[in-house]
Amino acid sequence: MSTRRLGADTVEEQVRRLLGDEPQRRARVAFARLTEPAHAATWAEIHRYGHVESLTRLVRGHSPLSAAARRRLDDLDLDAQLRAGPLCGARLLIPGDEEWPTLVDELEQPPHCLWVRGSGHLRALTDRAVAVVGSRSASHYGVHVASELGHDLAGRGLTVVSGAAYGIDAAAHRGALAADGPTVAVLACGVDRAYPAAHGDLLQRVAEAGAVVSEVPPGGLPLRSRFLTRNRLIAAMSSGTIVVEAGLRSGSLNTAGWADLLLRPVGAVPGPVTSPASAGTNARLRERGAEVVTDADDVLELVGTMGADLAPERRGNSRPHDEFTAAQLAVWEALSVRAPCTVEHLELAAGLDARTVLSALAVLEILDAARATERGWVRCAATDGAGDSP
Amino acid sequence: MSTRRLGADTVEEQVRRLLGDEPQRRARVAFARLTEPAHAATWAEIHRYGHVESLTRLVRGHSPLSAAARRRLDDLDLDAQLRAGPLCGARLLIPGDEEWPTLVDELEQPPHCLWVRGSGHLRALTDRAVAVVGSRSASHYGVHVASELGHDLAGRGLTVVSGAAYGIDAAAHRGALAADGPTVAVLACGVDRAYPAAHGDLLQRVAEAGAVVSEVPPGGLPLRSRFLTRNRLIAAMSSGTIVVEAGLRSGSLNTAGWADLLLRPVGAVPGPVTSPASAGTNARLRERGAEVVTDADDVLELVGTMGADLAPERRGNSRPHDEFTAAQLAVWEALSVRAPCTVEHLELAAGLDARTVLSALAVLEILDAARATERGWVRCAATDGAGDSP
Repeated sequence: MSTRRLGADTVEEQVRRLLGDEPQRRARVAFARLTEPAHAATWAEIHRYGHVESLTRLVRGHSPLSAAARRRLDDLDLDAQLRAGPLCGARLLIPGDEEWPTLVDELEQPPHCLWVRGSGHLRALTDRAVAVVGSRSASHYGVHVASELGHDLAGRGLTVVSGAAYGIDAAAHRGALAADGPTVAVLACGVDRAYPAAHGDLLQRVAEAGAVVSEVPPGGLPLRSRFLTRNRLIAAMSSGTIVVEAGLRSGSLNTAGWADLLLRPVGAVPGPVTSPASAGTNARLRERGAEVVTDADDVLELVGTMGADLAPERRGNSRPHDEFTAAQLAVWEALSVRAPCTVEHLELAAGLDARTVLSALAVLEILDAARATERGWVRCAATDGAGDSP
Repeated sequence: MSTRRLGADTVEEQVRRLLGDEPQRRARVAFARLTEPAHAATWAEIHRYGHVESLTRLVRGHSPLSAAARRRLDDLDLDAQLRAGPLCGARLLIPGDEEWPTLVDELEQPPHCLWVRGSGHLRALTDRAVAVVGSRSASHYGVHVASELGHDLAGRGLTVVSGAAYGIDAAAHRGALAADGPTVAVLACGVDRAYPAAHGDLLQRVAEAGAVVSEVPPGGLPLRSRFLTRNRLIAAMSSGTIVVEAGLRSGSLNTAGWADLLLRPVGAVPGPVTSPASAGTNARLRERGAEVVTDADDVLELVGTMGADLAPERRGNSRPHDEFTAAQLAVWEALSVRAPCTVEHLELAAGLDARTVLSALAVLEILDAARATERGWVRCAATDGAGDSP
């Protein structure tokens, strides 16, 4: 036997051992371990050959994928990887699984697989979900709005998807939890880790009420670059992304950028122009890169079926004279609550002719805004507003 | 002589006496006194016959105008009306006068004439002017932003036009005055009156720095309906209208409505969604009825010549790694400031092949983000950010 033959035998043996009896699932977990999320060169291979063949080509040395991936391959204990999920209470999902959140398939570089920890059914959770994101260094205002929004969206049956970070993310999750609503946290590290560490309890509650999700295998660290790729999953698992409060440099604007790429709606909550914490959101609104969102109704209108969830128009409490014509207003204004006026007086005071005054009075009478007395016309007290100038 | 002949003589005599040697000017003042501003029926006549002939027709009884206008005519002392301006330090302007603010001619129902009190040249003042308006019941936030905006716009040579009301209006005027800039107050009453009374000093300072203007003759009262017609002049005398802070019922939204009719740009300053004082501005932004304005630069871009006054893009302070590619970021992140790394280590840590790592390192070295030592590569300390996740 030549060394070459021996080498080939070893390689084919390695392929068989890796793929086992679940080649698709095992190949996907292998890639999740061997490469970073959303790695362009890896996905170029996979789009061409599929996961199983791409892994085979990698083992055989036929793949242009990095030497690093091949070297990681030598250290890969795939069976241990597959056991890691169950060991930390997580289940492994791949496309085709009934729980797979098919929304993520719209990504150019979707996750190879997902680890999910929690009581919720991820596909059902993400069927009607909104990402609520924002800065970690949030203001009281931002935290207040995020938690209200989380609460009210969850109360309307929407799943609140966020990143479990300090500030806006945590407030959105907590708001949803306070409404006993579903919420999903997408992590940049493995689902067995709490990041940030102070949010261990929060993540536990999110898992109980919904799901904690990651494409990074259990044990994976929250590397900086993984936050950027994690953000794409937050956007991809939601029908729209709401940025509650974001400074100019907030990573949540990156999440909104992913939503843009996915052609999903982006909303932003306006904030004081004097607050740096709102500079990023206000800038997106200014550049027409987001819709103005002021409450959960607005969000529903943004992500809901067009027409079905139209937010109510914002109007103040109507006052009777709001709908008056100019002539009616002039006559109404010339009237007094106490001193009755003649039509002639009203003509002079309102600068209108008798016919116009009379027709205005007729309407005002119907509207209970004026009434005729024996000595002339008076304004009805109930229609007398605060008396401030409009 | 029949009574009929006598009547005709008297009528023609009245026409001659009214029109005198300045028929256009005197007819316009007469209409300003006889009818309310923007009175549709009056303007229908005037658009057809002009001011002089319309007044003649009114005296002769040929006009469909109101009996009230005819009755006011009997009391009209036009010479006294013409003296009233100079008596209160105001000059009278009509179209054709060099100081006439021609922007108002775009109104369907322009003012018949204007009374102006102040040192400024009204035409020059309104050549480059912005309306800054908002609620009287303004918040600290609104007052702060209005006064900053007034200051910064005036500092850039723009005239701040407003209505001298409590709250946003006064703050805008005061901001402009603080910058020694020009400002114009348009009143709903005669320019000889201070309304609100507490703003007598403010109006005096506005007159000294710019102009106090009204289409209502001296002595005229601030009737409710005149605020609505006054608002059209604020919009008409400006190249754009900025609503700084407005509740859902604020009259400043009416001013914005006039700007809409005039096809002039409308801007609104976003505010907290938790603040009723910003509910009207946020609603206009949401309905895409206004552009987001955060500062004077944004206003300049809105009203300025397209392209000439583009506001600078809002970006945070750049950090070196902001512009890194994913590969460069992964390599940079794998580097340590203290412990030198080999290329092989970087391949493994970043999940990249040697070629990619080397080309990333080459760029990082050029950017002073990494440097080679005898024992391997290190990250340059200066590029090491706050270390927070993006």
